[in-house]
Amino acid sequence: MVHINENFLKLRAGYLFPEIGRRVGQFAEENPEAAIIRLGIGDVTEPLPPAVIQAMHDAVDEMAKHESFHGYGPEKGYAFLREPIAAQDYQSRNVEITADEIFVSDGSKCDTGNILDIFGTGNRVAITDPVYPVYVDTNVMAGQTGPVDDSGRYGGLVYLPVTEENNFVPDLPSEPVDLIYLCYPNNPTGTVATRETLQTWVDYARKHKAVILFDAAYEAFISDDSIPHSIYEIEGAKECAIEFRSFSKNIGFTGIRCAFTVVPKQLMAKASSGEDVSLHQLWSRRQSTKFNGASYVVQKGAAAAYSPDGQKQMRALIDFYMTNARLLREGLTESGITVYGGEHAPYVWLKTPAGVSSWDFFDRLLSQAHLVGTPGSGFGAAGEGYFRLSAFNSRENVEEALQRFRKAVG
Amino acid sequence: MVHINENFLKLRAGYLFPEIGRRVGQFAEENPEAAIIRLGIGDVTEPLPPAVIQAMHDAVDEMAKHESFHGYGPEKGYAFLREPIAAQDYQSRNVEITADEIFVSDGSKCDTGNILDIFGTGNRVAITDPVYPVYVDTNVMAGQTGPVDDSGRYGGLVYLPVTEENNFVPDLPSEPVDLIYLCYPNNPTGTVATRETLQTWVDYARKHKAVILFDAAYEAFISDDSIPHSIYEIEGAKECAIEFRSFSKNIGFTGIRCAFTVVPKQLMAKASSGEDVSLHQLWSRRQSTKFNGASYVVQKGAAAAYSPDGQKQMRALIDFYMTNARLLREGLTESGITVYGGEHAPYVWLKTPAGVSSWDFFDRLLSQAHLVGTPGSGFGAAGEGYFRLSAFNSRENVEEALQRFRKAVG
Repeated sequence: MVHINENFLKLRAGYLFPEIGRRVGQFAEENPEAAIIRLGIGDVTEPLPPAVIQAMHDAVDEMAKHESFHGYGPEKGYAFLREPIAAQDYQSRNVEITADEIFVSDGSKCDTGNILDIFGTGNRVAITDPVYPVYVDTNVMAGQTGPVDDSGRYGGLVYLPVTEENNFVPDLPSEPVDLIYLCYPNNPTGTVATRETLQTWVDYARKHKAVILFDAAYEAFISDDSIPHSIYEIEGAKECAIEFRSFSKNIGFTGIRCAFTVVPKQLMAKASSGEDVSLHQLWSRRQSTKFNGASYVVQKGAAAAYSPDGQKQMRALIDFYMTNARLLREGLTESGITVYGGEHAPYVWLKTPAGVSSWDFFDRLLSQAHLVGTPGSGFGAAGEGYFRLSAFNSRENVEEALQRFRKAVG
Repeated sequence: MVHINENFLKLRAGYLFPEIGRRVGQFAEENPEAAIIRLGIGDVTEPLPPAVIQAMHDAVDEMAKHESFHGYGPEKGYAFLREPIAAQDYQSRNVEITADEIFVSDGSKCDTGNILDIFGTGNRVAITDPVYPVYVDTNVMAGQTGPVDDSGRYGGLVYLPVTEENNFVPDLPSEPVDLIYLCYPNNPTGTVATRETLQTWVDYARKHKAVILFDAAYEAFISDDSIPHSIYEIEGAKECAIEFRSFSKNIGFTGIRCAFTVVPKQLMAKASSGEDVSLHQLWSRRQSTKFNGASYVVQKGAAAAYSPDGQKQMRALIDFYMTNARLLREGLTESGITVYGGEHAPYVWLKTPAGVSSWDFFDRLLSQAHLVGTPGSGFGAAGEGYFRLSAFNSRENVEEALQRFRKAVG
């Protein structure tokens, strides 16, 4: 008789975004005239940059001809993409990451989930709270947790609250942990980590032989040179950290699908035999066995973002969304709302007024202003009393949303 | 201290295709004038069909405009692709599979590997021998096996030999198994399963509450109406089988990346509590947590293969490769070689002459004829003494390969 992975049965039924979809769907059905504005899910809205479009057309044309057709590509991605990544995302910032250490994939959601394949069971896992739910759910599936409690917390995970009280800087865990998820600029809070904060974590990881899983999907939104874009800007990080990057938010690839993961060659872990094992080699083996490379056409598109034109067009896209974020921050502040994030990240994290619960605020905003955001408690117990608004939208919608917000809340 | 997944350390170091690459590379270096013809890896060579090219251009153009831009798509794929799959690949053959039961992905290698996420440890796994190495390696990584022995067999796996002796029809396992990998038309042997053979397996699986993982990546190459294209043509299969399909070989998507997996809604397994659990729901949860959908542009390309023009162009592609396969079969037979497969599959499986070992034959063919094939023993111990040639190549190369083969072997 076949056995299923019973860890799946521990997963809480009502995942955040489906529940939002259900409530919005019901409201829309009951109020067909309402022009709902969605600032909930972090999905881009602007078209792809022209340089990327051109490169993808060219790549499709190559596939139409015998002499330029491409079949299976390298599992870790084409050098034409890995090389500019290494040069422009890392070496230009004096970070010694080589093209060989980069694994191109079809998305950071896949990478941050699949990375657990190379780690054993029995690791103690630390996550910040609130957090991107995929880190939690993939650990539940992999059997790294116990059952869930009423607040939505899983046994065995070490939750590190990030709230107003600690200025959104997580404390080091009070018990030793083996795997640490950090995401900066942060989803959902929109906050960033200073060089000093990251150094503290790298030092901790090296001391405890832990591995940091660093999600830098939003690094392109950083607007202050003193804030690190990569964990590898921190001394010692190459011996303790894996970094995830994505093309979803910087060049709008949420529907095109491309990302990459950096696993430095000097990142080692000890097997139970005492033998040093290269995590780079484990990930390489995982990817070459269970993945067949990202689409050629997609990789050509991503590579175009590193051309001079592509860089300018990407910058313009990011500036566009960050102006939205600024408008949201300023408008909400004028309405008397306490606001965090939105300076180096496309997310604004606000305190619900008068201590209203996150889901009550969601319902109020939906019914009174026809606005959709994301309840902070959906990202974790410590997100209760907070609410996330995304800057990914048209200017017109953002301005209209602010007017409605002011009327309903201000 | 972080723990690694020590199952990875059980994997044999010399994976088949890298070893082939190494030997070919060395030969090419020592013989720079040799015009090597590669009939080894099963990678397509012909350009994409015009209908697919056009659809991909159109999709790229949609991404360039505000009003037609697509961000995140549904994790299980767009209905515009799942619906023609259900209608044309299944319902047209009187198989009641609905669009809801189809999960579009970026490749069958990913799907056949990732499917193990939903199964628990402690399953007894049966594979045919020889076999596509990914089934074995992903089970090793998932901890379903013991260590490897000298012949390359892993403890705990149930190997079902398919050779000349049993006419390439695997016997039912003599001990109960829980997960059964079947691939028809078969890679690497090129052989097919009759309706009766598949019925035997479905009956076995239902009796033992086992699940069949049915890889039908090559179904489009079937040229005889009596041979099932889908496991679901067999009575009872929807209660015991998951089917994998791919766009890699039929429309040449090895570099474009698209595939799909069918998990019927009535496919259930029992949890240890005795509760019935839907494997469809488990896979849906797995995919929505660890995958973000295949690229929009790619899905549009795949959907075009279901248009009347797309169908004609796909048929022409398949006919082209199958003519290659016929030429290989006939030419090898004329050279006195015993040949299997190649009638309903793009692979020809030949017996090495005079009992030469698979790797010795590889070296001989490479050095004397400058031809690259795949040693049968690389697919499993029972593949020793066999050799695979792929029909994926230009007509010119196939004809030249046969001439050289005749000189070297005939």
